[in-house]
Amino acid sequence: MKTIDDRLATRTTRMNASAIREILKVTQSGDILSLAGGLPAPEAFPVDIVKGICQKVLEENPVQALQYGPSEGLGPLRQALVEYAARLGISASLDEVLVFTGSQQVLDLLGKLLVNTGDNVVVENPTYLGALQSLNAYQPNYIPWPTDDEGAIPDALEEILRKNRVKLIYAVPNFQNPTGRTLGLERRRCIARILVQYEALLVEDDPYGRLRYSGTDVPTIKSMAPDNVVYLSSFSKVLSPGLRLGWVVAPHEISRWLVIAKQGADLHTGSLPQAIAAEFVAGGYLDRHLSVVLDLYRRRLAAILEALECHLNEVATWTRPQGGMFVWVTLPAVLDAEEVYWKAIERKVAFVPGKFFHTDGVGNSTMRLNFSNTHEDRLGEAIERLAGSIKDVAA
Amino acid sequence: MKTIDDRLATRTTRMNASAIREILKVTQSGDILSLAGGLPAPEAFPVDIVKGICQKVLEENPVQALQYGPSEGLGPLRQALVEYAARLGISASLDEVLVFTGSQQVLDLLGKLLVNTGDNVVVENPTYLGALQSLNAYQPNYIPWPTDDEGAIPDALEEILRKNRVKLIYAVPNFQNPTGRTLGLERRRCIARILVQYEALLVEDDPYGRLRYSGTDVPTIKSMAPDNVVYLSSFSKVLSPGLRLGWVVAPHEISRWLVIAKQGADLHTGSLPQAIAAEFVAGGYLDRHLSVVLDLYRRRLAAILEALECHLNEVATWTRPQGGMFVWVTLPAVLDAEEVYWKAIERKVAFVPGKFFHTDGVGNSTMRLNFSNTHEDRLGEAIERLAGSIKDVAA
Repeated sequence: MKTIDDRLATRTTRMNASAIREILKVTQSGDILSLAGGLPAPEAFPVDIVKGICQKVLEENPVQALQYGPSEGLGPLRQALVEYAARLGISASLDEVLVFTGSQQVLDLLGKLLVNTGDNVVVENPTYLGALQSLNAYQPNYIPWPTDDEGAIPDALEEILRKNRVKLIYAVPNFQNPTGRTLGLERRRCIARILVQYEALLVEDDPYGRLRYSGTDVPTIKSMAPDNVVYLSSFSKVLSPGLRLGWVVAPHEISRWLVIAKQGADLHTGSLPQAIAAEFVAGGYLDRHLSVVLDLYRRRLAAILEALECHLNEVATWTRPQGGMFVWVTLPAVLDAEEVYWKAIERKVAFVPGKFFHTDGVGNSTMRLNFSNTHEDRLGEAIERLAGSIKDVAA
Repeated sequence: MKTIDDRLATRTTRMNASAIREILKVTQSGDILSLAGGLPAPEAFPVDIVKGICQKVLEENPVQALQYGPSEGLGPLRQALVEYAARLGISASLDEVLVFTGSQQVLDLLGKLLVNTGDNVVVENPTYLGALQSLNAYQPNYIPWPTDDEGAIPDALEEILRKNRVKLIYAVPNFQNPTGRTLGLERRRCIARILVQYEALLVEDDPYGRLRYSGTDVPTIKSMAPDNVVYLSSFSKVLSPGLRLGWVVAPHEISRWLVIAKQGADLHTGSLPQAIAAEFVAGGYLDRHLSVVLDLYRRRLAAILEALECHLNEVATWTRPQGGMFVWVTLPAVLDAEEVYWKAIERKVAFVPGKFFHTDGVGNSTMRLNFSNTHEDRLGEAIERLAGSIKDVAA
């Protein structure tokens, strides 16, 4: 009798990251305060705006919202994004701007287009778990890009590129997932210079860039080395993740291939969500709504940092991000964060153990805490419980 | 200087089906009567229903419609689909029913999960072009499944399975794209028997099954060999393709892997579209609206068949489907349909030359005609122009 293993392709051996799936299952239970996910706050959804836009869109151009659309993305949305990108300092022509089913899909398609089995892919260490999940299907060899308190280290990248043939580099320069770190201007300039020198290709994933609660914006690496960067952004954090809308600015040759890959993957991105987003951007709703989101998250970030100060001072260290959705906590090296995790579950608080964001088996004493999806009034309690579970393990 | 070819993975050599893309570009021009696409009629979109449902959904459960959702699909939609599938004669448990970003995505993910380079995949000859586009990325070896006027031939499948190790079989049993043919009950029973005997896996793609304008429904192969069939359906033809919603009923072991693959591909399908579809099915809108669609397409099918009788009698032969969106025309073997295509463009009518639906280089004298997206009053004129272009080439 044939089993599923007789049917599966060899690439699936890398796709089944079951360990973290199993661990995070328990966070679903109702009474757990979860700092584990990466969800936006439901209070941050512009429900009334979306309701109004839905009616407008279905009134004025229902066929565009309901018919098959181009694989490149809906024309009016792409046009709006060209202008929006320009405001972010990224100059792009229309054919370089494409829309996808969430930016997650772009990671999958870039893997499909560029990565042969065993090809070297450089990822920040630690890096976004979802990027690994997408790329794993193409069986790359990950080269961890060393980071420090200021994020990814340019010299380390240069050394990697000097010694290895690298297909793709992946980084989240703004309020990184999982660390919350932001790359400074000088490092970005260095990295841009290195990319050009080595003719390397960087995926600059920027879902959190607009979620800045203090400090000033840093220019994108894309703006410094446009031919060597695929810039990736998303509507998930500024409008709604449920609409599944990501977008890219990619060099012409890459964007052409992304369209071909997109066609085989799902033909095109949902037309109704795209029509909603087009109006959300072009109608000026995005900027107005963003201030609501920023106010909300600014309070939550302040609350979690205050709680960490109060409960984990002299027990652990942590990042102090100026935006995004995550704080990264480092415990003394003798403590295992997965052990802390199970104690934390007993105490009804959850987080993600940091080792899952590493590709080289380190990070055992680190934790990723999400603060966007828990009310600021509960964050103190959550961190107090967390401190308790750390003490349980240290005891 | 590195070129794009230095960066691309080897699998891309099979992904760039540029020939048909280039050919069909010219059909976009405004004054061409296009029988080339596979688009539903815009008049068939339930605009007012969708408008009402949108408001209801965003009123009653906005968070579900706008937040991240499960990779399996939205709970209420899956529940509604379990009941809907039962009405189609397919009994399925909740964990076997999943929602995807169009059924196109399922073809991509099945390729990803099951197909190693060089693995044998059996496809009807001719077959749906989009299936080839999805699967090409996984570099299968296609084995063409011979067909006749009644569709795919069971004995031919058995011979293929006896002689070859086959990973996947792909077929569209109802109103096939491109031929419009429907497999009869006896053939389906035979095929089901063969699947079980050879422990083979069939993808039964059924986007058109509900679009029957005359005659009676034939049970699905899924209902006859549930463990050996991944049943695939879509909301594109009964609600709206722009919502990008496909769904499957897959054996438990396959559905579990589809969820893992889905997670890496785009995390989950759009929540708002799924919430709309859930209400569309559970609220009883689907069946009521379907009668509107059937009335519309029934007239168009009658019109194209009448026009073919009038203008191509004794020049060509064609299928007489009882549903779906396509009629398949066979010209005398001396005529090349691609030559006819270019003449047709001059005469301002378009279709798809049939050879593109074949994997073995045959079908040069065949053409796929779509009738769903052209008003019945224009179909006579379209076929008259087509007849003219055939005469141009025959002359």
